[in-house]
Amino acid sequence: MSQLTELLSNQHDQNVEELKELLRIPSISSLSEHKEDIQKAASWIANKLESIGLEHVEIVQTKGHPIIYADWLHQENAPTVLVYGHYDVQPVDPLHLWETPPFEPTIRDEKIYARGATDDKGQTFLHIKAVETLLKVEGKLPVNVKFCIEGEEEIGSPHLPPYLSENKEKLSCDVVVISDSDMWDRGVPAITYSLRGLCALELSLKTANSDLHSGMFGGGVQNANHLLVQLLSTLHDANGKVNVDHFYDDVVELTEFEKEQIKALGFDEEKLKKSLGLTDLTGGENNNFPYAERISSRPTLEINGLWGGFQGEGTKTVIPNEAHGKITCRLVHNQNPEKIQGLVKNHLEKHAPKGCRLEVSLQDTGNPFLTPIDSPMIQKAAEAYETVYGKAPVYKREGGSIPIVSDFNHSLNAPVVLMGFGLPDENLHAPNEHFNLENFDKGILTICSFLELVKK
Amino acid sequence: MSQLTELLSNQHDQNVEELKELLRIPSISSLSEHKEDIQKAASWIANKLESIGLEHVEIVQTKGHPIIYADWLHQENAPTVLVYGHYDVQPVDPLHLWETPPFEPTIRDEKIYARGATDDKGQTFLHIKAVETLLKVEGKLPVNVKFCIEGEEEIGSPHLPPYLSENKEKLSCDVVVISDSDMWDRGVPAITYSLRGLCALELSLKTANSDLHSGMFGGGVQNANHLLVQLLSTLHDANGKVNVDHFYDDVVELTEFEKEQIKALGFDEEKLKKSLGLTDLTGGENNNFPYAERISSRPTLEINGLWGGFQGEGTKTVIPNEAHGKITCRLVHNQNPEKIQGLVKNHLEKHAPKGCRLEVSLQDTGNPFLTPIDSPMIQKAAEAYETVYGKAPVYKREGGSIPIVSDFNHSLNAPVVLMGFGLPDENLHAPNEHFNLENFDKGILTICSFLELVKK
Repeated sequence: MSQLTELLSNQHDQNVEELKELLRIPSISSLSEHKEDIQKAASWIANKLESIGLEHVEIVQTKGHPIIYADWLHQENAPTVLVYGHYDVQPVDPLHLWETPPFEPTIRDEKIYARGATDDKGQTFLHIKAVETLLKVEGKLPVNVKFCIEGEEEIGSPHLPPYLSENKEKLSCDVVVISDSDMWDRGVPAITYSLRGLCALELSLKTANSDLHSGMFGGGVQNANHLLVQLLSTLHDANGKVNVDHFYDDVVELTEFEKEQIKALGFDEEKLKKSLGLTDLTGGENNNFPYAERISSRPTLEINGLWGGFQGEGTKTVIPNEAHGKITCRLVHNQNPEKIQGLVKNHLEKHAPKGCRLEVSLQDTGNPFLTPIDSPMIQKAAEAYETVYGKAPVYKREGGSIPIVSDFNHSLNAPVVLMGFGLPDENLHAPNEHFNLENFDKGILTICSFLELVKK
Repeated sequence: MSQLTELLSNQHDQNVEELKELLRIPSISSLSEHKEDIQKAASWIANKLESIGLEHVEIVQTKGHPIIYADWLHQENAPTVLVYGHYDVQPVDPLHLWETPPFEPTIRDEKIYARGATDDKGQTFLHIKAVETLLKVEGKLPVNVKFCIEGEEEIGSPHLPPYLSENKEKLSCDVVVISDSDMWDRGVPAITYSLRGLCALELSLKTANSDLHSGMFGGGVQNANHLLVQLLSTLHDANGKVNVDHFYDDVVELTEFEKEQIKALGFDEEKLKKSLGLTDLTGGENNNFPYAERISSRPTLEINGLWGGFQGEGTKTVIPNEAHGKITCRLVHNQNPEKIQGLVKNHLEKHAPKGCRLEVSLQDTGNPFLTPIDSPMIQKAAEAYETVYGKAPVYKREGGSIPIVSDFNHSLNAPVVLMGFGLPDENLHAPNEHFNLENFDKGILTICSFLELVKK
């Protein structure tokens, strides 16, 4: 490693300059006026991969934004590592809150500030740099490597899952490694071994064929808002537990080891309450599970939106004839999103108040993800972190959802290792996004080390 | 009466032409671009009152639109009748649904179509015509008459109550008569002897200091939508009865006579259900009172609006930190709107879920109104109707609210008689508003008759 370390140290400035080039391209996937920038970012990455010695470099056009493929397959009997990342970024508003412009990368206090710095251009680029460095030092890689880098992560990766299932052989590998998550804290690496899944529903309650005047009809006809409130109030019990039959049936409970890991991390509830302006943390099944378990390892049902009737200024004496709700559930291993959607729909239909028409539509789904902590690839990642950071990583479950992680897992039938190099306060999706350059450098080394370890 | 009838018959065309003049003025009180039209309409009415022989005609400027006062006080020992009406009108959109332009009065099938035709220019103007006719035939009026005609009824009469309380002596009278309501049916007159009152509240529930991500915090913190649903669901019991302590304490129940009157009117529930597209009429206290009583004689609590979180297209995995509701209560004799507001506020505060900040703001109020059916002025109005229409009027309670009716009642300490000449299907506040000219003519005669009867 010492030769690598030296080389990387010499190349630090050059590496950061190249990262800045990539960060200058405003590749916002959700805004159609940036379509050309997306193509520009894809070309930039493809050229970079080619220039460092990757082969079969391809910009795969989709009906949306392109996917980049590249590989290096010259270790016939060695395992194959597939690296996933994304080069698209979130929008930047509110622009006035940025201290320096989002697409003019600026370094302050050894942090690089720009949209995409940590999510995910910086973290993707460090894999490219790791491969480049190994090729420079050794003339070859310890294992076979494939890259699959997409441009639609921030808009839900609509074209990636079909690409995966149509290219199983081309993408076949022994492990998928993704750096799009964060460390536990400064100097404390983390491996995310579980993600929650998701399912979404929308409901509408309709009564009369128009809004009605509360003077003429008030007390005589149903008010859609009353029915919505009545229906939605059946979804949780008094302790915040989801009140839908069979909702928890398939949940794989935490092992005692996992519970102890979570406890040992010592979550600071007082600090969180203060920062959120809350007097207590009583969401979800708060009488049965500690906060840190609830947000990472328990399924939820949230009413993300509800509306009915008049929302303007002042008073309108209307009896609304429509009321609406939006629901999402966060799901855990081994819940099936489509099955849970069905259970929630059934519940709503069963409890629908008399005298109304209920419409329930099923929306997005995403599978939960779990790789057991003791699986070999997780252990190799842990060793790599320990080599570079001098500290064993924390194993953590993330409460959020990255549906493509489960798609990689299922389509390619390979374990997925989430090796994050971001920090939790790096403002991803917010103004002043940044990436700590210390972790950019250490990340390159950690990935080099991981590739060496996978070989064994 | 025969001389009057003859004169009116001869003057029919002239009277309708004059009404058209008034209807041509687009005196929309809620739109500031019509401020001059409002002044024009006020001047038109004032000039008309002066030209027919009324005295002390005055255009009283307010901070909003003017009130017109006029009187004829030459019957020293006779009672005084005060006529209230309004010359302002509702906006006209959606304009494309009008068969003829709203401010180009047009006669079809003996109905005059224009904004304000029935509400309330036509019904106000027939009082002016009654006084003019009596003065022409008799040279004097049987009683003293005062006019008080305002230009802000459609925007809630903000300046009328202070005008009433500051001019009690000037406006003192033995009865207030208002024609701003409707008959029971074609050929069946009606006296509205009760109106519901109103009180409004708005509430906001707040949890964390910002919306939170349901992946990072879901299951750990309160969702403002859940708390809103939980809180609002306490406001009614399973049978639609308002669940607020002491809410019904001051309600004066219907007499047996009134219940029989309502029953005798034979409300057609099947027809209504069909027209509203409803399978049942189960609003309010539906297990205790028939529909026709509930909409006219029982108090209600309606959630007119509720909202929280995401309402856009698709899914947003947000835990909203704010949720809102708007509530109005329709109130009946002898409930006090301020007292009820306090009770509802107390209920909300008492049931506010733990872990949130609740804000309740008190909005508009309006008193309910009741004049007993057997009071002398109501009986004289009934006799006048019977004389002209050949049919005793129906006594009805209106579910709507006209707060100024109660203001007249209390400020001037005089009974208020609501003698409507509109028909229920004349599209007030809607496109193609119209007024049946038969009731314009018969209305003039009925008011002449009423003034004669008040004298006795």
